[in-house]
Order: sequence, then C-alpha cells, then structure tokens
Amino acid sequence: MTRADSSAPDVGELTPPNRTLMGPGPSDVHPRVLKAMSTPLVGHLDPSFIEIMDEVQELLRYTFQTDNQWTIPVSGTGSASMEAAIGNVVEPGDTMLVPTNGYFGGRMASMARRAGGEVVEVDAPWGEPLEPAVVSDALAEHDPDVFGFVHAETSTGVLQPDVPALTAAAHDHDALVIADTVTSLGGVELRVDDWDIDVAYSGPQKCLSCPPGASPLTLSDAAMEKVLSREEEPRSWYLDLSLLEGYWGEERAYHHTAPVTNVYAIREALRLVAEEGIETRWDRHRHLAGALKAGMEGMGLEMNAPEEYWLPSLNAVGVPEDVDDGEVCGAVLEKYDLEIATGLGDLAGDIFRIGCMGYSARPENVTLTVAALGDALESLGGSVDPDGGVAACRQAL
Amino acid sequence: MTRADSSAPDVGELTPPNRTLMGPGPSDVHPRVLKAMSTPLVGHLDPSFIEIMDEVQELLRYTFQTDNQWTIPVSGTGSASMEAAIGNVVEPGDTMLVPTNGYFGGRMASMARRAGGEVVEVDAPWGEPLEPAVVSDALAEHDPDVFGFVHAETSTGVLQPDVPALTAAAHDHDALVIADTVTSLGGVELRVDDWDIDVAYSGPQKCLSCPPGASPLTLSDAAMEKVLSREEEPRSWYLDLSLLEGYWGEERAYHHTAPVTNVYAIREALRLVAEEGIETRWDRHRHLAGALKAGMEGMGLEMNAPEEYWLPSLNAVGVPEDVDDGEVCGAVLEKYDLEIATGLGDLAGDIFRIGCMGYSARPENVTLTVAALGDALESLGGSVDPDGGVAACRQAL
Repeated sequence: MTRADSSAPDVGELTPPNRTLMGPGPSDVHPRVLKAMSTPLVGHLDPSFIEIMDEVQELLRYTFQTDNQWTIPVSGTGSASMEAAIGNVVEPGDTMLVPTNGYFGGRMASMARRAGGEVVEVDAPWGEPLEPAVVSDALAEHDPDVFGFVHAETSTGVLQPDVPALTAAAHDHDALVIADTVTSLGGVELRVDDWDIDVAYSGPQKCLSCPPGASPLTLSDAAMEKVLSREEEPRSWYLDLSLLEGYWGEERAYHHTAPVTNVYAIREALRLVAEEGIETRWDRHRHLAGALKAGMEGMGLEMNAPEEYWLPSLNAVGVPEDVDDGEVCGAVLEKYDLEIATGLGDLAGDIFRIGCMGYSARPENVTLTVAALGDALESLGGSVDPDGGVAACRQAL
Repeated sequence: MTRADSSAPDVGELTPPNRTLMGPGPSDVHPRVLKAMSTPLVGHLDPSFIEIMDEVQELLRYTFQTDNQWTIPVSGTGSASMEAAIGNVVEPGDTMLVPTNGYFGGRMASMARRAGGEVVEVDAPWGEPLEPAVVSDALAEHDPDVFGFVHAETSTGVLQPDVPALTAAAHDHDALVIADTVTSLGGVELRVDDWDIDVAYSGPQKCLSCPPGASPLTLSDAAMEKVLSREEEPRSWYLDLSLLEGYWGEERAYHHTAPVTNVYAIREALRLVAEEGIETRWDRHRHLAGALKAGMEGMGLEMNAPEEYWLPSLNAVGVPEDVDDGEVCGAVLEKYDLEIATGLGDLAGDIFRIGCMGYSARPENVTLTVAALGDALESLGGSVDPDGGVAACRQAL
C-alpha cells in the first residue's frame, strides 16, 4: 500500500438518527419516495428518461395548477430555482420591487442586484402580509419591471392572502410577478393560472416531502418571452433558461447532467400529490396544522400570525418568557428525536418555527409535537399547560 | 371531488429499464450508494448532519489528494461546481485563459464571460492535449489572472499529461489555476496539492459513481483569499462561496437547504474510494479500461487518443466507415440495455464515447461492452472483427 492509499480516512457506516421532521424543512420523506431514490439510474439522455421528464412536467403543472409549458424541476435546491427565476427574468437595468416583510424578500433583493437589476422595496413589517393598496402605491411610485412577493413566508409563518389583488396591481403597471411558493406548493391553496402569477418557484423538501435537489419552477409564456428576448445572456450558465429550453424542450439536447435520482424522487412525490388530489391535500394540511395550532394555543402559547393570514405549513409560535428557544429545540431533539426550529432574522429568539408539511402532516406527528414541546417548555421553566395543549390538539384532530 | 382534484394526472409506477451505464456518465451506482440514497433525512442543521458534513469534507480531501480546508460538495450537478469555481474566482475585469481543445473549454469561456471576465484562448486542436510551451506563450502574451484547463476531456477522451508543467507556467505568470477534473476525480491519477492546482471541480456521477446532485470542489488558501477579498460580490447568490463559508465553515449558519440525501450518497461513494485506496482505484481504472481498449483495437477500431494521452475513464473510439454512430448506440441500448454515447461538438459523428468509470469499471461490463459493440457494428454493416475484439479484451483482463 502506498502513502496515499494508507492515509485513507476511516469513516464508519452512515447511521443518522431517526428524526421526526417538524421544522421548516426538510420534512419527513414518504417511504415510496425514499424507495424511488434507490432506483438504479438511467442516463440523462436515455429515451426512458425523456418520458420520465415529461411525466414530471405534467405532474408539476397539476401541482402548480397551471398549463404553463415552461414548468420544470431545476437542478438544485429551492434557492437554485429562486435564482433561476430572478436571474433570468431580471435583466441588467431592470427594476425589481421586493417586499420587506420577511427573510426571503431580502434574498430576492440580493439575487436581483446580482442579476444587474435595481431593487426597490415595498414596505411591510416582518410578520405582516402585503397590503394590495400599499403594493399599488409602490408600483405607481417605482414603475418596476418585475414584482416579487413571498406567498408563504417561512421566517414568519405568514400566508399572503388575496394574491389576485397583488398580481392585478402589478399587471396594471406592466410588471411581471414572481412568487416565492417554497412553503406553499403542495400544502396550501395555490393557483398559478387562476391567480395570474407569471413565475413561481418552489422547493421539494417542504410540502412535497421530497429530498432537496430538484426544485419546481414555472413560467408563463409572457415571462418566457422576456427571458428568450434578453439582450444580454443571464449571468448564470447553469441556470440559463434559454439553454435549459434545449434540454427540457423538444430538442432534448445535452446541457448539463440532470440529477436523475432527484427527478425520480420528485416524480414519486408528485404522484403522491396527484393520488391524494391537490385540494384534498390542501385541506389535510389545514386540518392537521389546525390541530397543531389548537395544541399550541391550548397550552397557552401565542401564534405569531393571526387567523386571517396564518400559514398552516409553517407555524410561528411565540417563545414564552423565561425560556431559551435554542435550549427548547435542543431538548425535544435530544429526548424525542423531533426537529423543530428557532426563529430567523428579525424574529430570532422570539418564535419557534414548527412545520406541518407533506408527509410530516400526520396526526401522530402533530400529537407528538404538541406533547414534546409542552414537556420541554415545562421542564425548562416555561409557564405552560402541557395537558391543556395535548387535549386541545386531540379535540381538533 | 372538485375539478382540480379530478384532473390529477394518472402517472404509473417508476419502472425505468435496467441499464448498464458505459457512457460518459452517469456511471452505474454501487448498491451501497443506492441504499444510502434511501436513508430517511435529518435536517440540514441537525448536529448529526454537521458531523456528516465534516466526514464528507475529509473524504473529499483524500480523493482530491489535498489538504485544502476549502473542500466541499456544491449543491448541484458538476456544472454547478464548475460555475461555483469560475464565478467566484473570476472577477469583473479579470482575464481568464481557457483552452480550445475540447467541449468543456468552451463552457469555461461562457461562464467566465458571464462572470464579467474577459476570455482569451490558448490554442490547441480538439483531441490534442495542451503543450506547456504553448500555454507559456499564451500566458506571456495575455497575462491572465486565471488559467483554466481540462484534466480529462470527456468530449475527446484526452488526458492532459504533465499537469505540473502547466501549473508552474501559470504560477510563473501569477495566474491562478482552475482544473476541470470532472472525469478524472476518483478514476485517474490526480494530486491537487502535489501538482499545485489552485481550484479543482468535479462531478459525482463519473468516476465516483454517485448520482448527480452534490459536486466536489476544492480551493487553495490563495484562491479562497482572492474569493474572499472580491470588490464586487459574485453574480450568483446560490453559489457564492463567501456565503457558503458560513455554512461549511465553523459558523454552520443557514445559507440554503443542503441536498441532504445527495450528501449521504457522496459520503458512501467516497467511503468506497477510501476503502479501495485511491491509487489502487486509479490502477483498476487503467487496467479495466486497458482491456476495453484492447478489445476495441482487437476488433479493428481506432482510439481517438494515442497511448500517451489516452484517458482510461472515457474512451473515444473512432466510428468505422459505413455505419451510423447513432444507430449503433441505439442498437446496443435496445438489445443489451447498454448505454454508450455518440460524439459531441467537433467530434460528433466521428467517435463513440465509452466510459469506464467507478463501479461501472468491472470485468463483466467491459466484456459486455466489447461484445455488444462488436455485434452491433457487424449487424449494421461495419467492417469489424467482433471475435478478435472479445479475445483481445479477455487476454488483457
């Protein structure tokens, strides 16, 4: 054995703990999707893979509720489909209007600037939805080319209500609309076509309960027309939709090696969506997250978002006084193998973020989460009523 | 059932054909890696995942033969790690010297331009390696900030010999060196530190035999210093290494959701590399591809690359007169469930591209490939000696 061979690291078998994932994502993956992940690969240009690509596109259209031809899984995690959306639609010199009411508006702004765009903001406090009238004013003031908003804010647990009012306002001002649907797709009512959304991107590891790695994106013909008539090529080769069109479109020409296994996985995850029915699935999320919410309120905790814009898939729950949020999350992880998360950005330290997404949204997980959080809070000196929480949850289930 | 629910697409179970993958990648995935892909997920900030990340970094360093702190899997396919390398190292106003001797030099150029760089070329014909003296002249003429070369050209089957001469020339001119090691990492001798390579990127689906989705990248301290002292932020947020440093470095702060399952998979694929020993693995590739090459030559076919710069992991084999390359590939796929590929770019129509990578590099696959190609060529009217091919392969095995 040579020097190089003998210095090989000695790393043991993969034995991660068996968590229940009730954080902001990834969520628990359905066994059928895990099984799809272990399917031997075919080549990314194999005739049989072309068929699979078609099926994934069809299933994605259903899940987005759109007829958009341009509907694909982007080869990366949710932030890659986000950057594909913004980096292709925003041209140097364009102005993009982004919201300030959560963490992901800030990410939109950063991506738009890097794409060569100018960024203007529509003001709303963290944890509040956008008011259509305020958006209208901002559109009138700034005359942006593109307007971005977050349908389901993972950082605040806020669901943007009345999306059609926002898109109508944007279209009145000839702005294209990009929607962040990372935490809504497959879990919360979302109708891309009926709501006149031009571009929507998402992640697979939230309400689709699919391992991250291939991320949904859909663009209307109008949006794609802007992309295909750009004067300057997008700043990313990897995410250049005019090049990806050669692979996902009729030509089927090589661009990059698709993440074959992740495409298998999202196909199976989307099949589960289709089998359940998208509206039934939205109802399930609302019902199970409702029980989770009842449990939180039943033990004396406060939701960050009021009922009108409560986001079932991501429940932002106030941290009671006298307990440390990080310690609480550590305790439920340690004792119950249960993942929930602390806050992010402006709300760091103030909220827990508890997901209720996809395959994770089951009675057993919701019950465990209420019981485990109550136990941990009580143990760490929080003034809560654990039994009241569990009872309220049970009654709501 | 509502309208939306009732319109759900009816897509059947996932039943791809069982291919043997001897094309330019993906290669056959080891059953242990497929098993790792089906492991239930933990969160991307879970303490147990942090440990896994450390292990992957250690295994990657071994496989690259480097001590570079900055060694990570990028969350995307090989082209994403390529863009991460070029998009971070090349700043607006920088000049990058790229080669013209294959398909991927052209991709480097496109990425460098999109990063705001100016591109200059070192001339070499398709299918030839770079001559150090010619590179030196180009360096002297253009004084570039960055020099990129392709260690193993998947489009031509050419292995760049004498890498230390290239890096020495570049460093004499104060240029940082970026190496494309997509088709060499884990299959062909590659010594990042000994050879003074500043940045190397790769893909997992070639000689590592791992499904695409998390792609190796390593940067020296010098390269990382340039990245971290950029005046303008990189044009990609998703691939911004100064932000990724927060996640892969000591802070472990959230940037994007890592593709947990793909990280599991590459960990297992790299464990297999460490168990085999990297030099033993290089030898295995050379031995088995040698038998493949003997089989090709034994049936009367010609290799595109002469022995001195033959690339074991990707064998470019001349298409005999009077047969159509696409028909031949279709025939072996149809009859033998075996994937080999046609040529790309300047060599389209002239060569077959036959991989011998990672878990695909086994006697049974090499034998099958020689036998199946001989059969298909003969059936389609090529003047070859199938039996001579199989005999030569057997003797070399």
